[in-house]
Amino acid sequence: MTDKPTKIVFVTGGARSGKSTFALRLAMQHRRRVFLATAEPFDIEMQRRIGRHREERGSAFKTIEEPVQIARALKNVPEETDVVLLDCLTVWTGNLMHRFGDDEPAISAEIDALLEVLLQPPCSLVIVTNETGMGIVPENAMARRFRDMAGIINQRVASRSDEAWLLASGLPLKLK
Amino acid sequence: MTDKPTKIVFVTGGARSGKSTFALRLAMQHRRRVFLATAEPFDIEMQRRIGRHREERGSAFKTIEEPVQIARALKNVPEETDVVLLDCLTVWTGNLMHRFGDDEPAISAEIDALLEVLLQPPCSLVIVTNETGMGIVPENAMARRFRDMAGIINQRVASRSDEAWLLASGLPLKLK
Amino acid sequence: MTDKPTKIVFVTGGARSGKSTFALRLAMQHRRRVFLATAEPFDIEMQRRIGRHREERGSAFKTIEEPVQIARALKNVPEETDVVLLDCLTVWTGNLMHRFGDDEPAISAEIDALLEVLLQPPCSLVIVTNETGMGIVPENAMARRFRDMAGIINQRVASRSDEAWLLASGLPLKLK
Repeated sequence: MTDKPTKIVFVTGGARSGKSTFALRLAMQHRRRVFLATAEPFDIEMQRRIGRHREERGSAFKTIEEPVQIARALKNVPEETDVVLLDCLTVWTGNLMHRFGDDEPAISAEIDALLEVLLQPPCSLVIVTNETGMGIVPENAMARRFRDMAGIINQRVASRSDEAWLLASGLPLKLK
Repeated sequence: MTDKPTKIVFVTGGARSGKSTFALRLAMQHRRRVFLATAEPFDIEMQRRIGRHREERGSAFKTIEEPVQIARALKNVPEETDVVLLDCLTVWTGNLMHRFGDDEPAISAEIDALLEVLLQPPCSLVIVTNETGMGIVPENAMARRFRDMAGIINQRVASRSDEAWLLASGLPLKLK
Repeated sequence: MTDKPTKIVFVTGGARSGKSTFALRLAMQHRRRVFLATAEPFDIEMQRRIGRHREERGSAFKTIEEPVQIARALKNVPEETDVVLLDCLTVWTGNLMHRFGDDEPAISAEIDALLEVLLQPPCSLVIVTNETGMGIVPENAMARRFRDMAGIINQRVASRSDEAWLLASGLPLKLK
């Protein structure tokens, strides 16, 4: 824990709305950068997507992969880190459901741990997430639960951010 | 019908975007409040959701439940009411389809009745709705019809509002 | 190719968000107007939708139908044209997938051709598209591919626009 000034920037938007690229640009304004990846390469489609993103970042970031315990990962970044780009909360939401199933207390514990880190972050943060609630209600109960959880996590994290953006067609709208 | 000044505020956003909480806060600025609920507790999931919302409101509102005839419900609120929080148009759209099926004239009549009330509302209104059209085209024809109808109702009601907000991740963007 | 000043306006939003009507109003500010329609009337639902839009336009536009080769269509509009209203990129994306299947180079060639036209458009353009990425991840791989492609096309076209709008409930938010 240091006394350096820190800032939390929240970046949301739809799939392929330019969120990650926008967040990357924000993070590049800092010097020593960590990329905290929540995605796991389950299948070929995912491997490709992750590979593309990794290429885009090049060597500008030290990459840490952590699908579930992101609060812990944030607390343990190297002390000299200036910014962590966390990409993304929505994949993390899915990972929480996959790991903990119906164990709501376990899920809440991880969410609360993240929210606590945000009260006193170890460095600046750029946090990427997805808007998933603007389509029609999913027929599948699991998808509805996912959508609800992703939306609530977004609200809570956004409320602890200093700045927030909504991306649409690659263009940013300032939310706060 | 009185001559007190009234204001119509339109609040839209995705699922779990913080619409209802934002609308609640707006309505709390008025003194005598009515909550006009369109949702019917068909199943346990819905019962829980409605229960949670009811708890959030506490005793600050008189609750009226009306799934279909909301124009009539609005015209019949107690004369001393300062604000009606109507939550929400999207559920109402589903109720119209469920009640009237393919009977488009019956559906149009209810929509027209609402639009007419909006020309001279009995008190201030805060109207909650959902954005449902920003996902991919639903495969199901009924879902497409629902999405179209919900979108058109949103456009018409928004056009008769004095103020309109889009919520994303709990944060409001001013539409007008 | 003439030296008259041209402007590219990008209009995005969900289904039934008022995009086409808003775009129509923008295009009406010009004198000689072409409507470039990408939709093909495959079924009755589509025929009705196209018919409704055609009625809304009346005789104010010369209509050109081109499902796939829109770059070519844009280059070949009558020289005296002041504005082309292109409606819409999302249907075009679906047409590209339908026509070319997995032939990515063929698809990329059409996209690149459009982007090239945008560098030096023959007249002013109003380009309508859809936000399709703000729902949950589609279960269907084809739908995911479509959503990715639509999003990327939106980003690229928006970046070459002079002005961009996001419609929600019929109301415009300025993206740039």
